[in-house]
Amino acid sequence: MPIKDMLKTPGQWLNGSGEESEIILSSRIRIARNLETRRFTHNAPNEELAAVLEQSRSAANETAALKDSRYLDMGGVSTLERQFLAERHLVSREFLFNSSNRGLVVNMSEDLCLMINEEDHLRIQAYSSGLELAKAFETASRLDAELAPQLKFAYSERFGYLTACPTNLGTGLRASVLIHLPGLVHGKEIHKLLDSLRQLHHSIRGLYGEGTDVMGNFFQLSNSATLGTPENVIIANLREMVVKVIGFERRAREMLFHKARSLLEDKVWRAYGLLRHSRSVSSKEALSLISAVRLGVGVGLIRDLSTRTLNELLVYIQPAHLQMLEGEPMEPGERDVARADLIRKTIADSANHQED
Amino acid sequence: MPIKDMLKTPGQWLNGSGEESEIILSSRIRIARNLETRRFTHNAPNEELAAVLEQSRSAANETAALKDSRYLDMGGVSTLERQFLAERHLVSREFLFNSSNRGLVVNMSEDLCLMINEEDHLRIQAYSSGLELAKAFETASRLDAELAPQLKFAYSERFGYLTACPTNLGTGLRASVLIHLPGLVHGKEIHKLLDSLRQLHHSIRGLYGEGTDVMGNFFQLSNSATLGTPENVIIANLREMVVKVIGFERRAREMLFHKARSLLEDKVWRAYGLLRHSRSVSSKEALSLISAVRLGVGVGLIRDLSTRTLNELLVYIQPAHLQMLEGEPMEPGERDVARADLIRKTIADSANHQED
Repeated sequence: MPIKDMLKTPGQWLNGSGEESEIILSSRIRIARNLETRRFTHNAPNEELAAVLEQSRSAANETAALKDSRYLDMGGVSTLERQFLAERHLVSREFLFNSSNRGLVVNMSEDLCLMINEEDHLRIQAYSSGLELAKAFETASRLDAELAPQLKFAYSERFGYLTACPTNLGTGLRASVLIHLPGLVHGKEIHKLLDSLRQLHHSIRGLYGEGTDVMGNFFQLSNSATLGTPENVIIANLREMVVKVIGFERRAREMLFHKARSLLEDKVWRAYGLLRHSRSVSSKEALSLISAVRLGVGVGLIRDLSTRTLNELLVYIQPAHLQMLEGEPMEPGERDVARADLIRKTIADSANHQED
Repeated sequence: MPIKDMLKTPGQWLNGSGEESEIILSSRIRIARNLETRRFTHNAPNEELAAVLEQSRSAANETAALKDSRYLDMGGVSTLERQFLAERHLVSREFLFNSSNRGLVVNMSEDLCLMINEEDHLRIQAYSSGLELAKAFETASRLDAELAPQLKFAYSERFGYLTACPTNLGTGLRASVLIHLPGLVHGKEIHKLLDSLRQLHHSIRGLYGEGTDVMGNFFQLSNSATLGTPENVIIANLREMVVKVIGFERRAREMLFHKARSLLEDKVWRAYGLLRHSRSVSSKEALSLISAVRLGVGVGLIRDLSTRTLNELLVYIQPAHLQMLEGEPMEPGERDVARADLIRKTIADSANHQED
């Protein structure tokens, strides 16, 4: 099945459902595992990587969790398509630069996938819409439990699961949420919050993970420690932290709504007007406009758009998605025009649909 | 009849009709006259000004040209109302600061008025939509001819009509057009044009005349010389100049349309989106947005709005108009909100009307 079929539907985890979905776009669990008798990916020669790939793929094939899935050999996938997969958060940037002997198994609803020969031999990723860390953890764990008997994982009694980078040692678990914090950003409270989170051993980053810019007030909030804390405690701690941040964000939104109502309304509706009418828009501006409109939907100012539509737009306005939709490569200027077209049509359709 | 009744309809000269009305909003003729036996306004004591006012008003009363008109004694008119009249281009800024013994006679369609005791004893002003200088001159001259037999005008065989300021000496005639030049401004050709016009003894100024900023790419283009050239030649010269400028503007618009189409479309539609949705907008920004949308209507990109609607908006979004509509004084911040409301409603009504 060609990759471009994936264009037809967005990942399940964007559908705007789940707890606190106004503020939390999605929850993600990532589990890192390595095969006991193999060298880590960055140290392994090609034939060893090929063996890991073959072995892991066969094992994945036997699982119920990935029964209804597609397999993508990165070596046979174009750079544009790999970019497309990265935009869907299915593969990491690692896969953009290294494709030989790398593979991805992803289920049809895109809430579970397995990267093979990323930084670790196996990276299980599970996604869920809203604040649903436990649900995503359950999905990821089911696959982990099905793979374990088939593939002997590198494990030490003292350290737990062994990983290529010591920051993942122990549980190999990274739990994260994609969180939208326009209230805290506008209220200028975000820097204080980021500092506190870091002190409390949580990390907060831009939309596309490590080293990426914060755009549109979207952040990834995740645990930093993986060693010495059981999985359920890591997840409970993160959840507790996220619930606190949600509380701060809600308070900041209420302040905006009550103390700067007309400023807020103006900001939100200007963004709506620009999204609905502009003919050329950069990624960065689009994210910022979508952020403002998403806030407007969240506080009830805009009623003819859903959180789901906006979440999906966040993915489809990205460069590789636009080019896959168009069916051919486009220069940045052409993409800006295509992006504006897509946004306009999506919002107009959504508005008409709501009016029905 | 209270001044606020004037709010109900805009001046006739805004109706978007007449020659070249896409580019020329309106034509205006102003004729300065003084009474022979009286000192100029700035030199006359109060009782003399009162006599000029009484004499001129009675004379105006006898004319057919001002038969269907209202008389406003500036001394009995509030500062806000005088600002309102200035926004309608019926009185000059002179009347904002001096109101005692000043008067205005204005006909019901607001295409002819007479200021009494402005810089000169009499200032006849006639307006017409589009490039219709001859029509406006005819209207003004009819009143001039009706007043002349009743009021002996200060006149010298050598200089012609005597005026308080030597720049108006001779014919006392100032002919001007309100012209919209977004193409030339965007194409950066405007400064070259302004220099040439000055060399050719024409003056070009901002929307509200002498000393006002250029906003929204709206300009007033008028003759500088009043002495030694007959009225019909002054008007023919100005017309010739205006026709040339229109040609330049058209060429600049075509360049934009053909060489930077997507940039132009984006600019125009962004302005439309902001006008249609923003909740707070300053005068300056509104003028700039209306200018872009007016260009969009002119080049056929926007079809659900008329030049007339936009011309009228230019007048109604002004501070005194907004406060008269609201029925009470407003702070600048409140005016920005009221301005955005008015624009939004006007554009939505117009769009619905066009869709019918």
